[in-house]
Amino acid sequence: MLKLERLFSKMSKRMKSSIIRELLRDATNTSIISFGGGAPDPETFDRNTLARLSQGVLIDEYPISLQYGATEGDPLLKDELIKILDDRHGIKGLKHENLLITVGSQQALDLMGRIFLDEDSYVMVSHPIYLGAASAFRAYGPKFVTIDLEDDGLNVNEVERALKKIDSRGEISKLKFIYTVPNFHNPAGVTMSLEKRKALIELAHRYDVLILEDDPYGELRYEGEKLPDIYTLASGEGVVLLNTMSKVMSPGIRIGMIAGDKEIVAKAALAKQGADLCTPTFTQRLVARYLHEGVIFDRIKSAIEIYRKKKNVMLNALGKYIKVSGAKWTKPEGGLFIWVTLPKEYDTMKLFEKAKKVGVAYIPGTAFYVDDRISSNMRLSFCLPPLEQIEEGIKRIGKLFD
Amino acid sequence: MLKLERLFSKMSKRMKSSIIRELLRDATNTSIISFGGGAPDPETFDRNTLARLSQGVLIDEYPISLQYGATEGDPLLKDELIKILDDRHGIKGLKHENLLITVGSQQALDLMGRIFLDEDSYVMVSHPIYLGAASAFRAYGPKFVTIDLEDDGLNVNEVERALKKIDSRGEISKLKFIYTVPNFHNPAGVTMSLEKRKALIELAHRYDVLILEDDPYGELRYEGEKLPDIYTLASGEGVVLLNTMSKVMSPGIRIGMIAGDKEIVAKAALAKQGADLCTPTFTQRLVARYLHEGVIFDRIKSAIEIYRKKKNVMLNALGKYIKVSGAKWTKPEGGLFIWVTLPKEYDTMKLFEKAKKVGVAYIPGTAFYVDDRISSNMRLSFCLPPLEQIEEGIKRIGKLFD
Repeated sequence: MLKLERLFSKMSKRMKSSIIRELLRDATNTSIISFGGGAPDPETFDRNTLARLSQGVLIDEYPISLQYGATEGDPLLKDELIKILDDRHGIKGLKHENLLITVGSQQALDLMGRIFLDEDSYVMVSHPIYLGAASAFRAYGPKFVTIDLEDDGLNVNEVERALKKIDSRGEISKLKFIYTVPNFHNPAGVTMSLEKRKALIELAHRYDVLILEDDPYGELRYEGEKLPDIYTLASGEGVVLLNTMSKVMSPGIRIGMIAGDKEIVAKAALAKQGADLCTPTFTQRLVARYLHEGVIFDRIKSAIEIYRKKKNVMLNALGKYIKVSGAKWTKPEGGLFIWVTLPKEYDTMKLFEKAKKVGVAYIPGTAFYVDDRISSNMRLSFCLPPLEQIEEGIKRIGKLFD
Repeated sequence: MLKLERLFSKMSKRMKSSIIRELLRDATNTSIISFGGGAPDPETFDRNTLARLSQGVLIDEYPISLQYGATEGDPLLKDELIKILDDRHGIKGLKHENLLITVGSQQALDLMGRIFLDEDSYVMVSHPIYLGAASAFRAYGPKFVTIDLEDDGLNVNEVERALKKIDSRGEISKLKFIYTVPNFHNPAGVTMSLEKRKALIELAHRYDVLILEDDPYGELRYEGEKLPDIYTLASGEGVVLLNTMSKVMSPGIRIGMIAGDKEIVAKAALAKQGADLCTPTFTQRLVARYLHEGVIFDRIKSAIEIYRKKKNVMLNALGKYIKVSGAKWTKPEGGLFIWVTLPKEYDTMKLFEKAKKVGVAYIPGTAFYVDDRISSNMRLSFCLPPLEQIEEGIKRIGKLFD
């Protein structure tokens, strides 16, 4: 029998399984109300239109849709995405060479790690951080420089201090990018203010550091005014924009994208060539046709109605049932997550076992800190459970503190 | 403007663009007959069945087929693959935990690189080597130990000498795996004999080294008797088997697999979690339903008829038009490639420019050598061009030597 341990790479030893997966695996019995995963409500999936369009994609276009495609992505899909990025994001003049189609934005994150990060690199991230980004970057072994999140996004003063400090050590060239989810942060639910977006761009330009802007939830705004993308504010200069169809169309279709400087996109395409050759051509064409139908923003409108209701029910229930002095939670204007902060004496990881027993699941905050700290936070996702279960679930969480 | 060069990782600097892509990009005008890519004949794609099944997958199963799925792969697809691996490959007792579904076998190759290879690792490969494997492994920076291919597969005496040599240097623990395409090798067209398969297993077991068996073409046998898989001969011990639906169903659907020890599969799944979260659930379910229909081997039979004809036309044309003393070519019993060896004075890379001018394209042999040597080989793929173009294409190649 092979001694496998000796065969595994250093990289593989850096990987760790997502706590979310481990926790939720034990919490899949149907009596548990789960606020765990960030999976969209399946009723938002436009299955009938997709079923109709898939006929044409398979029957009329089989020599393309069932064949190998370009690593960079399907040209028709790029046309559609370029239109949306123009119409909805005010991003002008993007060409095909500025776009790479990926297998969800998880692959986009991985490719960014792959082309930028070495073992001695630094990467600046928010704390808490989106778990998928942490796991994508961690594989490449960089050091994380963590910046606190405030109610209006990244603490940019802290960003400045950290940049200064790294620069003063002569290590600024090792800092590869600042990773940020400016809209409806996962897990924290907060949105970066316009002032902070501008300040971040100024700092990044001053220190010659790339900004990686990840925007999976931007279209899911339930209240307030849309803010311009960092990419748009910077006219694309020094910013790479990641996006995905996962939250606004279907995650199972696995279509994400990288938009940016053509040299970066070319390098990411080269990395993708070795990683999986190309994103499925069938699903790319299907999404292209779907976007061409022009119905997606109507669908998103109905999704917004569904999620706004769910979010409000959850917020009301939190106010009603969480009677812990000092507890607070974010009131997100969009996205899929509410971030609860309990007083420091609570360890939400320990509390999780108790929660399962009363029939409710959430993600303990520790999952979103790269230093694995004990956390008194919990991430509550309101997107998947049926509306009528949300109040009951929060009531069960309330019981944890009786 | 950011100085990008300083930002790019060491890994990204090891990547190189596939010569195939570069060459074929310039050779896409329709007057050129291309024996370049390994893209299947689209007439082998079962578009009508797929179109019918996609309805059910989208409409009846949307809460699964359009939702996130398990990183390890769809359970129904695994059931179907386990049945095929049992029926067709004599692989008994595989469980779900022994299988990982990947985005084509290119991702399987990448994940193997990711979990096994460090910069100081060795990997043993055939020379010539499948280009996609070379590019997947190269990204991780290992040293290639190259073994000549003979008409009946890897030179196993050379394998033994190389293993001995590495072992005597005390470096055997750095050799992670032996990569081999035993059936209808790409590019060389040769098949490893039963004796050599057994000898390779014996050597791998003796030196405690993993065998990575890649079998994309195994079902496309046009003549002769099917040989048992290395995996089967070794009862799975110390062997990882990669396979794909790309050549027998559709490459655009991007479904591949890794079968092996559950510890290896778990590690590869962990790597995949960071790389792209999961393979599209929609296409996985579609392939599961397709396999469940039980029509795939009938389809493969018709594909075999198409390809056998094309291969024979190409072989006949080669005999008729390539009048170069000392030129020879493989007569593959299956797969998609013929490997032409010209006398040493020919450099097929230089010849390629001339070929384009007379309206024909092939892949110069140098693409398949990790040392980028000058090569007098050409890879001819007979799968994609229409039957009636094959003779004309070879005639044009013949003209290069006038």
